[in-house]
Amino acid sequence: MTADSTAALPSLDFDPTDPVALTQALVRCPSVTPAEGGALSLLAAVLSAEGYGVHRPVFSEPGMPDIENFYARIGSEAPVFVIAGHTDVVPVGDEAAWSRAPFGAEIQDGVLYGRGACDMKGGLAAMVAAAIRYRRENPDAPGSIAFLVTGDEEGPAVNGTVKLLEWAHGRGERFDHCLLGEPTNPAAMSDMIKIGRRGSLTGELTVSGIQGHVGYPHLADNPIRGMVRLLAALDATPLDQGTQHFDPSNLEVTTLDVGNPATNIIPAQAKAVFNIRFNDTWTPETLANEIEHRLREAAGNTVRFAVTFRPTNSVAFLTEPGPFVAMVADAVEAETGKRPALSTTGGTSDARFIKSYCPVVEYGVVGKTMHQIDECVAVSDLVALERITHRLLATYFATQHKA
Amino acid sequence: MTADSTAALPSLDFDPTDPVALTQALVRCPSVTPAEGGALSLLAAVLSAEGYGVHRPVFSEPGMPDIENFYARIGSEAPVFVIAGHTDVVPVGDEAAWSRAPFGAEIQDGVLYGRGACDMKGGLAAMVAAAIRYRRENPDAPGSIAFLVTGDEEGPAVNGTVKLLEWAHGRGERFDHCLLGEPTNPAAMSDMIKIGRRGSLTGELTVSGIQGHVGYPHLADNPIRGMVRLLAALDATPLDQGTQHFDPSNLEVTTLDVGNPATNIIPAQAKAVFNIRFNDTWTPETLANEIEHRLREAAGNTVRFAVTFRPTNSVAFLTEPGPFVAMVADAVEAETGKRPALSTTGGTSDARFIKSYCPVVEYGVVGKTMHQIDECVAVSDLVALERITHRLLATYFATQHKA
Repeated sequence: MTADSTAALPSLDFDPTDPVALTQALVRCPSVTPAEGGALSLLAAVLSAEGYGVHRPVFSEPGMPDIENFYARIGSEAPVFVIAGHTDVVPVGDEAAWSRAPFGAEIQDGVLYGRGACDMKGGLAAMVAAAIRYRRENPDAPGSIAFLVTGDEEGPAVNGTVKLLEWAHGRGERFDHCLLGEPTNPAAMSDMIKIGRRGSLTGELTVSGIQGHVGYPHLADNPIRGMVRLLAALDATPLDQGTQHFDPSNLEVTTLDVGNPATNIIPAQAKAVFNIRFNDTWTPETLANEIEHRLREAAGNTVRFAVTFRPTNSVAFLTEPGPFVAMVADAVEAETGKRPALSTTGGTSDARFIKSYCPVVEYGVVGKTMHQIDECVAVSDLVALERITHRLLATYFATQHKA
Repeated sequence: MTADSTAALPSLDFDPTDPVALTQALVRCPSVTPAEGGALSLLAAVLSAEGYGVHRPVFSEPGMPDIENFYARIGSEAPVFVIAGHTDVVPVGDEAAWSRAPFGAEIQDGVLYGRGACDMKGGLAAMVAAAIRYRRENPDAPGSIAFLVTGDEEGPAVNGTVKLLEWAHGRGERFDHCLLGEPTNPAAMSDMIKIGRRGSLTGELTVSGIQGHVGYPHLADNPIRGMVRLLAALDATPLDQGTQHFDPSNLEVTTLDVGNPATNIIPAQAKAVFNIRFNDTWTPETLANEIEHRLREAAGNTVRFAVTFRPTNSVAFLTEPGPFVAMVADAVEAETGKRPALSTTGGTSDARFIKSYCPVVEYGVVGKTMHQIDECVAVSDLVALERITHRLLATYFATQHKA
């Protein structure tokens, strides 16, 4: 089901080319997933005033809250440069632990505080500000700029970017390149752009034994012994050595539970859950096969186990370094004086969905405080990101124009 | 606090030298720990009628239910042959799953059914019946026979045999030898007498790591990895090779819990509980030191762990084979045609407390169904145990008399 939101737009009392004022306005919208919180209405007001065509499709799924999403475009020609992001934020957590109001957007000593300041209202605001300034300065610029913004990135991500991309594609929208404004920098704006992400695969391992009394171990079979053997085997040999652009794939056992309160009873079953962040050596299918193979080898005829894998849409992907990646890195280097690393580290992001439609690179502010108490962003980083994005748009459209 | 129970005694409508009738009468007393259920009153009625001096001390402990215990003695001279046991039983469990009433003591096809039939009302009844018959046949027999019976063997065992032994010792009672009527036979009455028991030591192992996101494993430290390493090390080398009368000591991990529901989070801590059944190679102290040593070796500088051991009064003990053990084995062989094995296997029993006061040997009925649905005992086994006990008493006092 798709229906456009019909909420009235707010009036603006700031200059939308000011990335700091726009970030403050966005942070003041309490848009904890799945709430829209006024954030998309604010974007709609800002961009429609600049001549963008704005759509706010609402996606639904049985048993899940409806989610508002956002698409805006200016220009009718190719190339289409997409700026992607999300306005939803994770919950505040222990509000009493915050030193500033989580939705207050207070600035102190050059730092802007609030939930979503770095993940990723700050990044989105800086890019919106840059796009507006670029088009105001270049009203006859070639090509198009589009904004693809979801309200469901931090939640189940079911009524978010996946459906928004399908929706746009169904309307005939075609994208040439995408910049996703997630906070990619560990410490400084010159640190890192992300050109890919590892995939994620979660498995559940159950080892079955025979329950019995600890005094009669020969009549029982302790599944914890088998579990330790299987987990040691999974950890004994690396999954791979990494690839040109990726770290080695990594398996972490995230929980291991038996739940037997009786110290004189050998339990019947042990369960573990593990998550693998994998590189482009693997698909989810080849990786699941490898894990099953290793478990079978380690189990031999003595350990009875079952392993199941949760469905995943998270494959490893890479935007191969080339002219577009270089253009982003050039813009960062020109504004910060230092060339950023090309990385594929960290968690997953919506880039894994966008990459099926066009090449995508991620770059944003410093993410050190994301999801934490007193999340914040440096005002100077917002200014830098606005300048970097502006430079990138100028170069991109100049290059495409010439090409 | 100690006070004798003042409950009125029931009248008897059966011959107490019939081990089957006495077992039935005891099984019909619903004496699930801590309830006395009429079982000790029944014993009191039976034995006082035979001339025993009967005491029913009640022991208390703050926060625990009061427990009735039982001591009866006939004769005033040494040697004192003690028959020990308990009348409390474990709960019925799923009563609907029983094919007979759990406290009905129904006999069908030569089998007597009911909670406690084999553990250990049947064994106690057969020994009471044998002692009565022996004294009726030998009114001038030398020495004394005593019954030491607790109502708290299946429960916390705090207000039971330990205090009853102290109480008796405080009254000047001195014991020469003890037969504890726990069900020692795996399948047939000629199988096994127990001349010792392994000790039991329970430890709690905690491995601490650093919580983090699975996408950034270098910023975290997964405690499950360390836990697997430590548990594998504990399992890698046997604790010992067993001793002349004991199986090798054995460690079982009884539970292992992390409780982390998030598949994208590396947890902060993992906890395991293990129980060791140990032989006379060890004391609880030397064994705890060995485990700590092995854990430290396996942990090196990379795994942060803490191990604590629960207090235990369960040391390994052995009644060295000699004239008394031989006398019990002779009696079994004479009545069954086969010499029983001398074993130290299985769980713990109150023999671990009695052994501080006199040599103790355990022998009783077939324990196959103990603690189970449809617990039962063969009528022929009750008859055999009565005869074996009678033979043992006759030999014991004849030998002591001549000595």
